[in-house]
Amino acid sequence: MSVGIKGDDIMDYSPAVKKILAKEKIEVGNRLSVEKGGKISEGVLMPNTGDPNVLVVKLDNGYNVGLTPEGIKIKKLAQPKRVLPKKMKYERDESKKTILILHTGGTIASRIDYETGAVNTSITPEDLIASVPELAAIANIRAEIVFQMFSEDLEPDHWMLLAKKIAQDYERYDGIIVTHGTDTIHYTSAALSFMLQNIPKPVILVGSQRSSDRGSSDAAMNLLCAAQFIVNSNFAGVAVCMHANMDDDYCYVHSGLHVRKMHTSRRDSFRSIDVMPIAKVSTSGTVEMSEYKKPSGEFKPLIAFEKKVALVKVHPGFNHRELESYGKIGYRGIVLEGTGLGHAPINAVDKLTKHHALLLSVIKKMTKKGIIAMTSQCLYGKVGMNVYSTGRVLQEAGVIPVQMTPEAAFVKLGWVLGQTKNLEVAKNLMVENIMGEQIERIDPKAFLF
Amino acid sequence: MSVGIKGDDIMDYSPAVKKILAKEKIEVGNRLSVEKGGKISEGVLMPNTGDPNVLVVKLDNGYNVGLTPEGIKIKKLAQPKRVLPKKMKYERDESKKTILILHTGGTIASRIDYETGAVNTSITPEDLIASVPELAAIANIRAEIVFQMFSEDLEPDHWMLLAKKIAQDYERYDGIIVTHGTDTIHYTSAALSFMLQNIPKPVILVGSQRSSDRGSSDAAMNLLCAAQFIVNSNFAGVAVCMHANMDDDYCYVHSGLHVRKMHTSRRDSFRSIDVMPIAKVSTSGTVEMSEYKKPSGEFKPLIAFEKKVALVKVHPGFNHRELESYGKIGYRGIVLEGTGLGHAPINAVDKLTKHHALLLSVIKKMTKKGIIAMTSQCLYGKVGMNVYSTGRVLQEAGVIPVQMTPEAAFVKLGWVLGQTKNLEVAKNLMVENIMGEQIERIDPKAFLF
Repeated sequence: MSVGIKGDDIMDYSPAVKKILAKEKIEVGNRLSVEKGGKISEGVLMPNTGDPNVLVVKLDNGYNVGLTPEGIKIKKLAQPKRVLPKKMKYERDESKKTILILHTGGTIASRIDYETGAVNTSITPEDLIASVPELAAIANIRAEIVFQMFSEDLEPDHWMLLAKKIAQDYERYDGIIVTHGTDTIHYTSAALSFMLQNIPKPVILVGSQRSSDRGSSDAAMNLLCAAQFIVNSNFAGVAVCMHANMDDDYCYVHSGLHVRKMHTSRRDSFRSIDVMPIAKVSTSGTVEMSEYKKPSGEFKPLIAFEKKVALVKVHPGFNHRELESYGKIGYRGIVLEGTGLGHAPINAVDKLTKHHALLLSVIKKMTKKGIIAMTSQCLYGKVGMNVYSTGRVLQEAGVIPVQMTPEAAFVKLGWVLGQTKNLEVAKNLMVENIMGEQIERIDPKAFLF
Repeated sequence: MSVGIKGDDIMDYSPAVKKILAKEKIEVGNRLSVEKGGKISEGVLMPNTGDPNVLVVKLDNGYNVGLTPEGIKIKKLAQPKRVLPKKMKYERDESKKTILILHTGGTIASRIDYETGAVNTSITPEDLIASVPELAAIANIRAEIVFQMFSEDLEPDHWMLLAKKIAQDYERYDGIIVTHGTDTIHYTSAALSFMLQNIPKPVILVGSQRSSDRGSSDAAMNLLCAAQFIVNSNFAGVAVCMHANMDDDYCYVHSGLHVRKMHTSRRDSFRSIDVMPIAKVSTSGTVEMSEYKKPSGEFKPLIAFEKKVALVKVHPGFNHRELESYGKIGYRGIVLEGTGLGHAPINAVDKLTKHHALLLSVIKKMTKKGIIAMTSQCLYGKVGMNVYSTGRVLQEAGVIPVQMTPEAAFVKLGWVLGQTKNLEVAKNLMVENIMGEQIERIDPKAFLF
């Protein structure tokens, strides 16, 4: 069984670029010199992570450049030189804070792998600082690999492993950065928020989106901003730190419970939903905090999760048999993504909708044995199940409206069912606003922000 | 069996407002006079559609006012006076274009019901013009009820009824407006786009969101903008016309294939995804068109739909049994909402992910008998299944990436499977860009626009 990111997991360069590389027998990871427009640079060939026609070279100063093949001259250089010697002495600076960086995989980790030549096995602070040298100026860095995989493959079991690791180690550090694939970073941040309640240190998740517009990666900037945020703010809890816009100006720090990946490829894909970001952070260490109240409760690691929970999207023609199937395979929790204010087709109003009565019966049956929570596929705005009769009937049938993203609701429901076997206790926990996950007041400025 | 919108389907007024109304024995639909701040108005009490503490009165000039109960004096007036007599003579103006307004229900219809006193049975041009008098100045109006229901209850069968009605009548009109509940207006607009290919007239869907900020409704403005767009543009095809912002400045006209309800309650909830709106329209008739090319093909009504199609959202812990269930109940088409660029947990990389191999087998099995299309739960941005190995393996397993919203993909897949029993033909149709549904170039300005 293979673990981690391999070369063939990375998008190929275009035939044109490949031809130029093949001619010089240059492969990803090789050292090379590049001449373009009279300017010569030296560095390491990086895997392509965006436009297949743009050659990406990690320069010796730590930055990536992207070069189109036109008018380019490249030459393989002997003896790949490491930016920092592998066994560089790494001195702890007692005047600085100390950050633990936990790796879980994804694009951000694959870049570091390539840069350092370390593949999938271990990562040292030296490796990391070789990749992002500016980190050393911000804090003392410790680094560990917890696991190394694409985030789409992460199971709730991995969330628990990660939460246990953090619960065990957090006291020894001023903050923790978790590097993570971007596909499901917002699910993991929600899971850690519930599992590590009132953790008194900042736990900041960062990822790296592919950069389709240029060769430079966003990994370094997201890491640096996360480190600066840890060092320069009073924040405690779980958050996600990612590019705020298409430039390299600053990052936003988003609440781990109210963040969502809203674009498949942009560096500024991560957005706070219905609330404003917690902070705006620059790599130089400027931190602008929104109104923020540090949690004061006692740290409670509550690390359990019921996996028989699904996220089910309502659609026109949504059939009782679709929902019933989840019951048949033993699922105890369903988060519905309803239409509009939180609706499902349950009204039998003409001969074409007679069967809607069956959906309502299935819902009633399933809420006797488990939990059905309602969110909205609109994503923004409050679920409002007292507005129209559909919502009221659904509530009478046992459906619980919740004020959060469908993804956060899914994580909460799995976590709640992991905490207790008592259905009534679980239902009360779903209604309760445990970690600020239930949005009480939507910020109108936050719509599509 | 009850049909249509009833009084109890509308949100109740607050106890404070109810008390004032009860004292004067005033019910929704009754005529009343209101005195507040020295100003006296007369009109009809409307159902509450927003803040339960704001009394909504439709004035004789056709506009709604919202009044908080503080310092208000109300009095029931005898003999509800109709704004226009029921049998008003409605003269056709040969110099004006003629628009057919088809009612399908939802909030927009319920308002008209209350205003006119006509409940759920028939609607005349007079009823409509009594409700939105400015319509008469824009065009000759004809109105019909096709059905009358909340849009969450609409079945694909209703789309077909509506498409048949339009295909049958469109030649006699300069354009058609469809009033529709907002929950699923974007599913219906996608369905009509596929079913009424190259229709040479504009078919504009309008809805009405609840107005939580004031008593006035957005129904009138959306209708007026749609009418102005029909009269003052060269557009042909299916589109959605809704408020562009929180003010009553103008509406956007969105492509029927690339629009989505993005907020549960705002009037400006409808947004074009990955493309810019087709046009900006004001009630006074100003139309600013984006780059627009009128379709030139022959009108092809292709009215069929396979209902055994589902929209399935991938999530951490997504299990092969979840997907398998859809096969077991005979579903032939699945649109997956993958994570990130279009991923699902199919890689077995450690002992916690061994079972991911089973999901891959189920996918392979299901794509032999039916179609699995991949979209992204990010909603914005292209699906990119050639970037990482996960995407490539999914494609080898038969998954078809499509470049559209999950909702449009769901509608396309049902429509495609309705057109042919031949699986290969159907797969080719899914890949084909039939009506511009596959976005070839994403407009970066359109992200969260």
